[in-house]
Amino acid sequence: MVKKLSRKVAMIGAGMSKFGAWFPIKENRDLWQDALINTVKSVENGIEMKDVDELFLGNFSADLFNHETHLAPLFAQIAGLNPKPATRFEAACASGGLALRHGVISVASGMNDLVMIGGVETMTQVPTVDVTDALAAAADTRLEYPAGATFPGLYAAVAKAHMHKHGTTEEDLFNVAIKNYNNGRENPYAQVQNSIEEVMAQKKEKAIKRGKPAPEWASPHDFLRSRSNPMIAYPLRLFDCSLVTDGAACVFLASEETAKKYTDNPIWITGVGQGSDTLRLQDRNSLTSFQATKVAAETAYNMAGLKPKDIQIAEVHDCFTIAELVAMEDLGFYPAGKAAKAVENGESKRDGSLPINTSGGLKTKGHPVGATGVAQAVEIFKQMTGKAERNRQVKFDVNKALTHNLGGSGASCVIHIYEK
Amino acid sequence: MVKKLSRKVAMIGAGMSKFGAWFPIKENRDLWQDALINTVKSVENGIEMKDVDELFLGNFSADLFNHETHLAPLFAQIAGLNPKPATRFEAACASGGLALRHGVISVASGMNDLVMIGGVETMTQVPTVDVTDALAAAADTRLEYPAGATFPGLYAAVAKAHMHKHGTTEEDLFNVAIKNYNNGRENPYAQVQNSIEEVMAQKKEKAIKRGKPAPEWASPHDFLRSRSNPMIAYPLRLFDCSLVTDGAACVFLASEETAKKYTDNPIWITGVGQGSDTLRLQDRNSLTSFQATKVAAETAYNMAGLKPKDIQIAEVHDCFTIAELVAMEDLGFYPAGKAAKAVENGESKRDGSLPINTSGGLKTKGHPVGATGVAQAVEIFKQMTGKAERNRQVKFDVNKALTHNLGGSGASCVIHIYEK
Repeated sequence: MVKKLSRKVAMIGAGMSKFGAWFPIKENRDLWQDALINTVKSVENGIEMKDVDELFLGNFSADLFNHETHLAPLFAQIAGLNPKPATRFEAACASGGLALRHGVISVASGMNDLVMIGGVETMTQVPTVDVTDALAAAADTRLEYPAGATFPGLYAAVAKAHMHKHGTTEEDLFNVAIKNYNNGRENPYAQVQNSIEEVMAQKKEKAIKRGKPAPEWASPHDFLRSRSNPMIAYPLRLFDCSLVTDGAACVFLASEETAKKYTDNPIWITGVGQGSDTLRLQDRNSLTSFQATKVAAETAYNMAGLKPKDIQIAEVHDCFTIAELVAMEDLGFYPAGKAAKAVENGESKRDGSLPINTSGGLKTKGHPVGATGVAQAVEIFKQMTGKAERNRQVKFDVNKALTHNLGGSGASCVIHIYEK
Repeated sequence: MVKKLSRKVAMIGAGMSKFGAWFPIKENRDLWQDALINTVKSVENGIEMKDVDELFLGNFSADLFNHETHLAPLFAQIAGLNPKPATRFEAACASGGLALRHGVISVASGMNDLVMIGGVETMTQVPTVDVTDALAAAADTRLEYPAGATFPGLYAAVAKAHMHKHGTTEEDLFNVAIKNYNNGRENPYAQVQNSIEEVMAQKKEKAIKRGKPAPEWASPHDFLRSRSNPMIAYPLRLFDCSLVTDGAACVFLASEETAKKYTDNPIWITGVGQGSDTLRLQDRNSLTSFQATKVAAETAYNMAGLKPKDIQIAEVHDCFTIAELVAMEDLGFYPAGKAAKAVENGESKRDGSLPINTSGGLKTKGHPVGATGVAQAVEIFKQMTGKAERNRQVKFDVNKALTHNLGGSGASCVIHIYEK
């Protein structure tokens, strides 16, 4: 059965805080204020908070990162929304995307005319080992976590299986990182704003300053296997992993009638899909493809009446480099095992045939987990309205785009399709 | 503007696990299985999981209580729902009620035809001091929590203000407890199944066994001020506080057309309202009334086209005895300051004019926070279908009922109205 939205839903504004490691200056509420201000500014004809009907907030675990919960009414208060409804959504790293989906449904249903979607995570207040530990609580705590299977290990298993089945190499994975570093350097909101070549140059300079021999790297692929890119969980190295990040993002959604008040250039959300899978990787039929993505994609494509080939740009969930390759395949952009070659050919670069993660992705924009799904929509909004900063704006008019937000090792997935 | 559901939504089944302190036997997933089995059994014509479209799960903080998150896809797996969408909702102690509301909206919107709502919390795996600490994370962590204002203290401030404004007494508060103990003893799923008189008799017997002088209590009101009912935060004593509980609850919702397959006796959810307020008590205009409740109630009453006087029974959020009195007033059942007298007169007893918390309420049924909002709907389902156990079934045909689920010190509230 093809599910349809019962009325049209438009994105009329989108913005985010600077993503970064802010400790101890910015807490969740401070990042939310930053995102809020940028989002309000992004609305063409201005917007007043009194017209907003409801807040949908994505957050993974302020519980474990900041020992605070019940953020939705607080964020509503900061936005001047009390006594309107405010709800937090959680599905690990897909929390933001889920908040967005439920917001879309609430507008489509006629329950709301104008809603605000938020996403936030502040991860750098605790030591990195506790971050890994908190994230691991999104894996199975009876059979994965006690066995030491934290997320780098789980995605390493996916990568190893992909290598075994499709001949994927460490170079293939690193090509994804190189591309995303090149994109992040064009994003003033990204946590890391250097290309891999710039990172290499900085490391050389530092070595020389310390009176040590400068590393002899002729190309990024020399750097790949160097001590500066240590193994985290074979075959995933440091530069294959996304970042630990503080950040918030926000978008406004409106019904067709209401949207007219705020903008002449609405971005329509025409497809929404969500899927689930077993929490444990070990219960799956396949390690090289995520069922939740496939089901969510099918639902979203059918709702929008589009095919993968219609999508012009996409933000996909590259929590690890391997996840970007798997997403490119699960979303139907490339046949299984063919994404790596496409990346190598430059097809997913900003000037390629299907630009992916122009924002820099989770790899360099950063990955404040609960904010990520909403920040993906922010990048699409900027690209589709021609407002992407620096040299990041793609060179063609974007009419059809997609965001892909994954939770856990693929146990949750939510996909949105955007049209002009 | 009166908000309406765009199509009818029926509750077609409801069930719960036994509520109690299960450590270390039952984890979240085990309690969920118990609730699931009872809920499936409650569906008149049987139900198959393959027909369920989506899972909406309320959970406050498995993060802090059990160091596990991302429960929704796991619970979907246990229920055989993968790869269908599964989402967790959090708004402190209103988490379950919010999951229910978003489930109702999704069915009304036409997005889904048959959905499952769950709620769960396992609180007894950590010491009580850590439970208080985890719950306090739902208060403001910048200005309340660091000042030592945990929830007993916050609700004590509400109680003291209510006493000051309306002349409410400790006896008035204790009357709520006596009534709820009398209800809980008729609920086989309740954590505590003794009347206050039975609790007193047990304590006397224990004293005699130990060779100590038996306490001389002539009535429950002698017990009220005894050492057996110690002060927690003035004026709230031990027996004014709800319980620390493990438990899960579940309901099925269906569209009108779909409901016909499963039952000839659907319970319609005709009104839904959600409200928010400042997270901090100190930012409010009033301590004796919750704005979130008033706004949620107004929305729900208007949607259902009903008035407070139309409601025949209600489950209200008695996290502390004072909260039941405030709810009775905020919901419009009684004018401000008049609820205590109504309780004293027996109006809220099972055989009174407006039975409240026939389940025993949070006070004796127990308060596994994320499950509570769903368990309230379970009690209403049982009462409206004439299936309440033991001597708990009210003696008239219930056609109109209400549930009231509160989060934090009233920063979130969600209300549902049920009709036959």
